[in-house]
Amino acid sequence: MADNKVLIVGTMAFDEVETPSGASGKIIAGSATYIALATSFFDVESAIVSIVGRDFPQDYLKELSKRNINLEGVEIDNSGDTFYWKGRYHKNLNRRDTLVTDLNTLANFNPIVPEGFKDAEVALLGNLHPRIQLSVLDQINTDKTTIILDTMNYWIEGNWDELVRVVAKTDIITINDEEALQMTNATNVLSAAKKISDMGPAYVIIKKGEHGALLYHKNQTFLAPAAILDNVIDPTGAGDSFAGGLAGFLASRSEVDFQTIKTAMIYGSSVASFCVTDFGTKSITNTTFSQITERVEDLKKLVHFETL
Amino acid sequence: MADNKVLIVGTMAFDEVETPSGASGKIIAGSATYIALATSFFDVESAIVSIVGRDFPQDYLKELSKRNINLEGVEIDNSGDTFYWKGRYHKNLNRRDTLVTDLNTLANFNPIVPEGFKDAEVALLGNLHPRIQLSVLDQINTDKTTIILDTMNYWIEGNWDELVRVVAKTDIITINDEEALQMTNATNVLSAAKKISDMGPAYVIIKKGEHGALLYHKNQTFLAPAAILDNVIDPTGAGDSFAGGLAGFLASRSEVDFQTIKTAMIYGSSVASFCVTDFGTKSITNTTFSQITERVEDLKKLVHFETL
Repeated sequence: MADNKVLIVGTMAFDEVETPSGASGKIIAGSATYIALATSFFDVESAIVSIVGRDFPQDYLKELSKRNINLEGVEIDNSGDTFYWKGRYHKNLNRRDTLVTDLNTLANFNPIVPEGFKDAEVALLGNLHPRIQLSVLDQINTDKTTIILDTMNYWIEGNWDELVRVVAKTDIITINDEEALQMTNATNVLSAAKKISDMGPAYVIIKKGEHGALLYHKNQTFLAPAAILDNVIDPTGAGDSFAGGLAGFLASRSEVDFQTIKTAMIYGSSVASFCVTDFGTKSITNTTFSQITERVEDLKKLVHFETL
Repeated sequence: MADNKVLIVGTMAFDEVETPSGASGKIIAGSATYIALATSFFDVESAIVSIVGRDFPQDYLKELSKRNINLEGVEIDNSGDTFYWKGRYHKNLNRRDTLVTDLNTLANFNPIVPEGFKDAEVALLGNLHPRIQLSVLDQINTDKTTIILDTMNYWIEGNWDELVRVVAKTDIITINDEEALQMTNATNVLSAAKKISDMGPAYVIIKKGEHGALLYHKNQTFLAPAAILDNVIDPTGAGDSFAGGLAGFLASRSEVDFQTIKTAMIYGSSVASFCVTDFGTKSITNTTFSQITERVEDLKKLVHFETL
């Protein structure tokens, strides 16, 4: 069993997604699910802290366990149903509208971190209420743990003060480009990254979807490409699986520094590029590690050039 | 004097630009102007084929001549004024509205290619009416010349049949991402690039603004990064100076192949990154070649990572 651990807090959910390619029907999703599957490609033990309702299939939990994903921290609340989200993507897949959000059992979630994961190498706070992210931070040994935060506009708009407290304790933040601009009132992503870094995180990763992701650290920048794809079916989970790949790779290494995070982003980009080729988690669970590393080499070739 | 030649057809113009940073006032611009200035960093002799009116300053023409830019093909039409364009950029600089377009003397332009440039190594057909681009192609030795075409939505919508005839004779096309999708009814840039390549060009370059540019050639792809900037004042001319840097670099080399075009795109990206830091052509004319090569090295660092 792997020595290195990744603690994951996030949602486990049912999604219904409509994209130009079709409708998913009701499928298993959620930030913690995508993240945990992405970390499972690496030599790490992951644990999910989340909550599901009476309607979540036991078989799926077994599948996660088989992938060395610890579920001690997944509360099964039989008093209600699992968090449900329904959304529809626009033609170009860069925008989406939320049609339904039913918090269900997620509304009363009190996260409990399993004892064995309080000193995990990496803790990834997936997209969720900042209050829950703070509660997880309070339970772990933050000195030993690299804290990665993934957040989004919903919390920027509605829970600013709590979000700022989480950001202050974060080592690596991942955030979408538009949301980074919104959060900082900046007019370009470089200024936004600097401002967010001033709030706490030594490493700021601005996610740009099909345009890759930008890493900012002490006036150094790095651009991780996204794979060039013509078979994108559903972008849901791309950001989560990017963050999960990043966390999994980092936890499997002894160092967390600029160079290692650069490579970790490429692995995250590779995992995300498989995630988007089908609805839900199917495409990730059908991907092998050798496909992940092959795409990492493809990404290297994609941006390679000679100077004179 | 350089042995290698670049023939440039495009507009010489007065622009008035409003961006979130301010208003430019009436300044000298135009696709051929930006392209020619960009080629002048390289060991090539360039010639502009264009038209100006009675109001275009002689002093500016002298400045261009000093940069080894041949102006034999620039008609001075004293019966009217120079082409004038006024536009306003949106807050995020990715979109702009045209406020005024006065063709003036450009309306009656019949391009005449100088004798010494009919077998130029590279011919760059800058953004202009496809009929004029075709007329230039009819005058040159297309077997010996690498034809680069830069085009935009205006001609896609209004002059499709003539545009298709130009594209068929093109070796390298540069086109914006949205316009590539529009031109091909594709839903992603990779499919769009394949479809455009089927129309003629062996090399298709999809320009993605601040997200760089994608090269497609026989199922191979390359992603040229754009510099990460926090001092963009005016994006006008970015596409032109990218194409000009590309053309200038290519003309200075003996080979035109996938590897060389990759490096040429990086030089184009470097020139464009200086272009956008001020209104008009000022920033390009104030840039040195060592700054261009330094930024090429920065772009290399920007995308460099180690795999395991």
